[in-house]
Amino acid sequence: MKIPVVKNILNANDQIAADNRATFDELGVFVVNVMASPGAGKTSVILATTERLPKDVRPGVIEGDLASRIDADTIAARNIPVVQINTGSGCHLDAPMIRGAILNLPLDAIDLLFIENVGNLVCPAEFKLGANLAVVVASAPEGHDKSYKYPGIFAAADAVILNKADLLQVFEFDIEYFRRGIEMVNPNVPFFPISCRTGAGVDAWLAWLLEKQKSFAEDRNQSVIV
Amino acid sequence: MKIPVVKNILNANDQIAADNRATFDELGVFVVNVMASPGAGKTSVILATTERLPKDVRPGVIEGDLASRIDADTIAARNIPVVQINTGSGCHLDAPMIRGAILNLPLDAIDLLFIENVGNLVCPAEFKLGANLAVVVASAPEGHDKSYKYPGIFAAADAVILNKADLLQVFEFDIEYFRRGIEMVNPNVPFFPISCRTGAGVDAWLAWLLEKQKSFAEDRNQSVIV
Repeated sequence: MKIPVVKNILNANDQIAADNRATFDELGVFVVNVMASPGAGKTSVILATTERLPKDVRPGVIEGDLASRIDADTIAARNIPVVQINTGSGCHLDAPMIRGAILNLPLDAIDLLFIENVGNLVCPAEFKLGANLAVVVASAPEGHDKSYKYPGIFAAADAVILNKADLLQVFEFDIEYFRRGIEMVNPNVPFFPISCRTGAGVDAWLAWLLEKQKSFAEDRNQSVIV
Repeated sequence: MKIPVVKNILNANDQIAADNRATFDELGVFVVNVMASPGAGKTSVILATTERLPKDVRPGVIEGDLASRIDADTIAARNIPVVQINTGSGCHLDAPMIRGAILNLPLDAIDLLFIENVGNLVCPAEFKLGANLAVVVASAPEGHDKSYKYPGIFAAADAVILNKADLLQVFEFDIEYFRRGIEMVNPNVPFFPISCRTGAGVDAWLAWLLEKQKSFAEDRNQSVIV
């Protein structure tokens, strides 16, 4: 007897993530889902990146936090279009939240949209939003064992940024040990040690990101949705 | 017509938390649920505390992580009884996990049990484990806005530790701003700036903790379960 196996039935979240992505693709918006622990420096990475963008790549930001509009105010002060999502007690963003947020963004004036997820190394990895890339921001003060303790989110990353890298020595951070942990779950993932404070390393990350964005601008039929 | 309103029906987790607590009370074990972001220094706080305990207060530890036994190995190297819980993709510990773990701990040789929760500033606050105290460990590198962005966990704290306080200036951490955020949701909660690296402030935290433990040892009928 044959047992039917049905695969790839999209759940409700993934279906809406696909809808989000269709909207982004239609309007030519390249979208990056930024995930990290609380305080790793998601907002700082987004600011350091947007400051250095060429003029023809116009940024936008969706901010996710349980409460407060601190990050959205910081972004808005730079004259970057931004929407703040407050999740209440929710530990991650989901696709319907993004669906709502983009109604309040001038998508036709945005080429590169950063979605700053809720600070959490666990739950955000499990919910697609409709982005093109998922980026995990780790930071030196968190310690070099995080790639071993939170493998799921590092496995889901298209790139890993190590922020506050100017303080590696202060925190006795063994960068090779950290990287081996990442490689165990995500071999050859691009890795960018940076310092948003000093600016070191930001250009390498930016060059990689712009290459991805350019490739998208030339061909929007990229299939992976994150 | 009167509508019956039924309150305080314990959910399955809370019922098992109460069972855990009954076990702890019977054996005279005082239990502290330690919650924090990844890398704030939960394990370091536990080690700094256990190192300074008087001889008649014998420690034990339950470690919670998605993966790895790194922290449990660190604790075991100090000859402290320890059990590692791996939650897989679970973003917090729950009462049944603790129920299982204590079967593997010599509770009659433990006076003060630390439960190190999964690194996460959101989900752990919502699940009682059967502890006497909930302690949140923040850290200077995370930034002074975390009390505003993650109010739920600070509201659930019986004490807040600010670790890596030797680095307040490096991270331009405004301690009064941070405290005002905590006071908004949890007025007058005890607050301990410490540095596990230098040892500064650890004695004040320890004195407070031992007072709580002593009060419990004299009267185990404390009603709040966290």
